[in-house]
Amino acid sequence: MTTTARIGFITVSDRASSGEYEDLGGPAMQAWMGKALTSPWEPVARLVPDEQPLVEAALRELCDEQRCCLVVTTGSTGPALRDIVPEATEAVCQKMMPGFGELMRLESLKFVPTAILSRQTAGIRGNTLIINLPGKPSAIDDCLNAVFPAVPYCIDLIDGPYLETDEACCKAFRPKHAKRPEGK
Amino acid sequence: MTTTARIGFITVSDRASSGEYEDLGGPAMQAWMGKALTSPWEPVARLVPDEQPLVEAALRELCDEQRCCLVVTTGSTGPALRDIVPEATEAVCQKMMPGFGELMRLESLKFVPTAILSRQTAGIRGNTLIINLPGKPSAIDDCLNAVFPAVPYCIDLIDGPYLETDEACCKAFRPKHAKRPEGK
Amino acid sequence: MTTTARIGFITVSDRASSGEYEDLGGPAMQAWMGKALTSPWEPVARLVPDEQPLVEAALRELCDEQRCCLVVTTGSTGPALRDIVPEATEAVCQKMMPGFGELMRLESLKFVPTAILSRQTAGIRGNTLIINLPGKPSAIDDCLNAVFPAVPYCIDLIDGPYLETDEACCKAFRPKHAKRPEGK
Repeated sequence: MTTTARIGFITVSDRASSGEYEDLGGPAMQAWMGKALTSPWEPVARLVPDEQPLVEAALRELCDEQRCCLVVTTGSTGPALRDIVPEATEAVCQKMMPGFGELMRLESLKFVPTAILSRQTAGIRGNTLIINLPGKPSAIDDCLNAVFPAVPYCIDLIDGPYLETDEACCKAFRPKHAKRPEGK
Repeated sequence: MTTTARIGFITVSDRASSGEYEDLGGPAMQAWMGKALTSPWEPVARLVPDEQPLVEAALRELCDEQRCCLVVTTGSTGPALRDIVPEATEAVCQKMMPGFGELMRLESLKFVPTAILSRQTAGIRGNTLIINLPGKPSAIDDCLNAVFPAVPYCIDLIDGPYLETDEACCKAFRPKHAKRPEGK
Repeated sequence: MTTTARIGFITVSDRASSGEYEDLGGPAMQAWMGKALTSPWEPVARLVPDEQPLVEAALRELCDEQRCCLVVTTGSTGPALRDIVPEATEAVCQKMMPGFGELMRLESLKFVPTAILSRQTAGIRGNTLIINLPGKPSAIDDCLNAVFPAVPYCIDLIDGPYLETDEACCKAFRPKHAKRPEGK
């Protein structure tokens, strides 16, 4: 039996949530996932303003009630007063995963020196991996390309569903002992 | 109207503050800024011993009373008992900016393997960006060369003055929408 | 007079501590140290399950009672529920040293994209440097090769014994003023 993985997508933006802007980040994250994942999955999407309590509530809901194995956020990771996603993420996680932020910044530095302004992080809440992504769709792709090869094995380790990827888009890595025969 | 940016410089050193040593780090930071910035600015300099409460007080004064948009510190970032600048910085900041420390260490690693001993960080207090720099003048230059291209846009994002740089010394980056016509 | 440096080795593993698995990480760390260090040292080894209070107790004992200048741990640094070594390390340290984890992940990324799943860190407790290493022996070697060149000077700075290394195995770096004449 194959489990359908639930994946949460949270767009954090005052202007997108008020309808002033179109939400581009949420669809960009879903489009990337649609190309990369070959195992069954379904999206759970939310759009919230840059308010830390609302972002924390959305993260908790997608982790605890919607049972997502992975939640990705877009936006609100910069230095401005209303950029609060890293703080919301840290507030709801039991474990922080500093390697994700480090690698995403390093990757983004290949394109812009302002990559160091991103405070993106990642962490674990129960059986869910939470990853902060930038707001800009092209930067979302760059960051997912960089970190996603480690995501399926991470989700194995927190007792989530077995995710499989299209190697042409994303070459996921698992140690030999963690691999399942194809199609199982 | 052009605002004169106020920039804070804090030298943290028991021996420099007691007069036993000449303060080399403070002047090195100011000299770098003099070469890099073409928009108007003025320095506010302080010299304090390696005492966390005194460093915190100096940071608060330069941020809240002197209204500096940027405060750079030199010294006291290593592993020794009296190295306390990262802790003082974290204590006064509302947001931490891990990308600065990561990039400064990565840059310094090109020169010495002991770069990983530096605990340098950066953060935001209100409308001020605080950046920890090493104690050694040549390492100060290396670190400012590495991170300063992101500083003017960071200060835009926290509602500070519009800093302009001499591209021959430091090529600051702003996304197109954030650029002002020259000379305005 | 030459001081014999005491070095602590903590293997953190439910299965190794219950006897189900052979402890491979502990001996791998000791073997690396045996090749790298030319100054006198003696090991103090402990084997504990993945329980945060027990790991904290072992760290405290090796730092405070056994007076180790360096304690290295192996295992329990991943994202799984029972991976608790980074939390235990942070709980007992006065200062965190983020550059160690950053460099170890960067080094491990050369081999596997899942390197970002390691939450390895390092920190200072009193006069002891604590470094988390991975569980796998080959990864232990990669990480020690990467960070150890900075370790002897770090231990100088926290008033520990003067460690010397075999340059063929590990080229330790000290600034000129910190070097002692050979054989002293």
